[in-house]
Amino acid sequence: MKNYKLTIQYVGEKFQGWQKQTSTDNTIQGKLESVLSLMAEEDVKVAGAGRTDAGVHAYGQIATAKLTNAKNPRDIKFYCNKYLPQEIAVVNVDEIYPRFHARLNKSVKVYQYRINNSGVRNVFENRFQCNIDEKLDISKMKHAAETLMGTHDFTSFSSNKNSKKSNERTIYSIDIEKIDGEISITFKGNGFLYNMVRIMVGTLIEIGLGERSMKDIGRIFAAKKRSEAGFLAEAKGLSLLEVIYEE
Amino acid sequence: MKNYKLTIQYVGEKFQGWQKQTSTDNTIQGKLESVLSLMAEEDVKVAGAGRTDAGVHAYGQIATAKLTNAKNPRDIKFYCNKYLPQEIAVVNVDEIYPRFHARLNKSVKVYQYRINNSGVRNVFENRFQCNIDEKLDISKMKHAAETLMGTHDFTSFSSNKNSKKSNERTIYSIDIEKIDGEISITFKGNGFLYNMVRIMVGTLIEIGLGERSMKDIGRIFAAKKRSEAGFLAEAKGLSLLEVIYEE
Repeated sequence: MKNYKLTIQYVGEKFQGWQKQTSTDNTIQGKLESVLSLMAEEDVKVAGAGRTDAGVHAYGQIATAKLTNAKNPRDIKFYCNKYLPQEIAVVNVDEIYPRFHARLNKSVKVYQYRINNSGVRNVFENRFQCNIDEKLDISKMKHAAETLMGTHDFTSFSSNKNSKKSNERTIYSIDIEKIDGEISITFKGNGFLYNMVRIMVGTLIEIGLGERSMKDIGRIFAAKKRSEAGFLAEAKGLSLLEVIYEE
Repeated sequence: MKNYKLTIQYVGEKFQGWQKQTSTDNTIQGKLESVLSLMAEEDVKVAGAGRTDAGVHAYGQIATAKLTNAKNPRDIKFYCNKYLPQEIAVVNVDEIYPRFHARLNKSVKVYQYRINNSGVRNVFENRFQCNIDEKLDISKMKHAAETLMGTHDFTSFSSNKNSKKSNERTIYSIDIEKIDGEISITFKGNGFLYNMVRIMVGTLIEIGLGERSMKDIGRIFAAKKRSEAGFLAEAKGLSLLEVIYEE
């Protein structure tokens, strides 16, 4: 039995998200498990660091898979890229110590949301951006982002209903940049709840448009109600950029 | 009657190229003429600088259109972007002197061809790259590119049959760069024959793979036969980057 760490890229638009579902085999995890199981001639389970929603992309998703029938990492990479759909690529495979688990080991996750604010769609990047034509006040968004940072109960920023688990998460940084008509918002945190990044982005957009005060964030946290936060920003603007593990 | 200069971007994969055809209305020129004719309530003709093939993209295609029912350039841009397919965008509209014609005025055209030579597909850029997994010898390709530059009869590098027009063209520069596993080949010239860039790229790839000598170019020019040159590289790797007019 050997344990492997895979770095995976995908364009999310054609898939029902990362996580395998009984109702569809059109998920990234499902596609990977099928290909690896065929290759290794055994039932392979894949664990991913971030369970990206339907339509969300990944530049550096990390996953682990254990194989009884051990293979050369180079052969695993070659086989995956040969048989996976064109929109998924395995860019790196390493053997790793047996106890390492992509989801259970502590990590910092980096998500990026891209907004085209140029007023004209970018035909080349349109699959990876949401379009907001109205002027966004970046300084208000940056100000509000500062109050989202830190350790909070993010219940109001999640679509997850009646979870018994803790909704406390820590956001280390939120960087907002505008380059050539594109605004990118980069979140680093120890974990994100279901839809959390997209709801934070929707809230920041409403603040940037002046539809909501930048002082709203405190009230939203306190309410612990999804309905208090902003709209759910489109999935296609979001990418899981990187997963960084401790040590 | 006013004359307008339009700067247009498109992702070519869904279209049958730039030029309007009687057999299909799925061309960039056809889509633009339909939208502009609807807007101006007259029969608008659009002339494009470069007649890009089916599947080829443009970052800076230039076109001219004359309107009897004159409109504000900003309104033309807005209307086009509202009604054109998502894969086409009009990024700029200017009024220009009446005699200016996007195709007939002398220009330098800049085309770029992108090759993913990293060994793993780039899921984000796959629509804009061809994939060559084998090692390419860049220095041989650069050497061969130098012999393609200058003024030549490019008959061997064109798919155009029995043309009575001159096949003499001038290439001012060919720049080959490798950055992070991607090789880009940028051509500047006063004009390009049908399929000419893609056949030059196919020939350069064969030279880079060692399947053909870099000294072949002289013999190919002399033969004036399409069959002497290399393969036709895939359309999706090619973009019309820029059209630069004199004065």
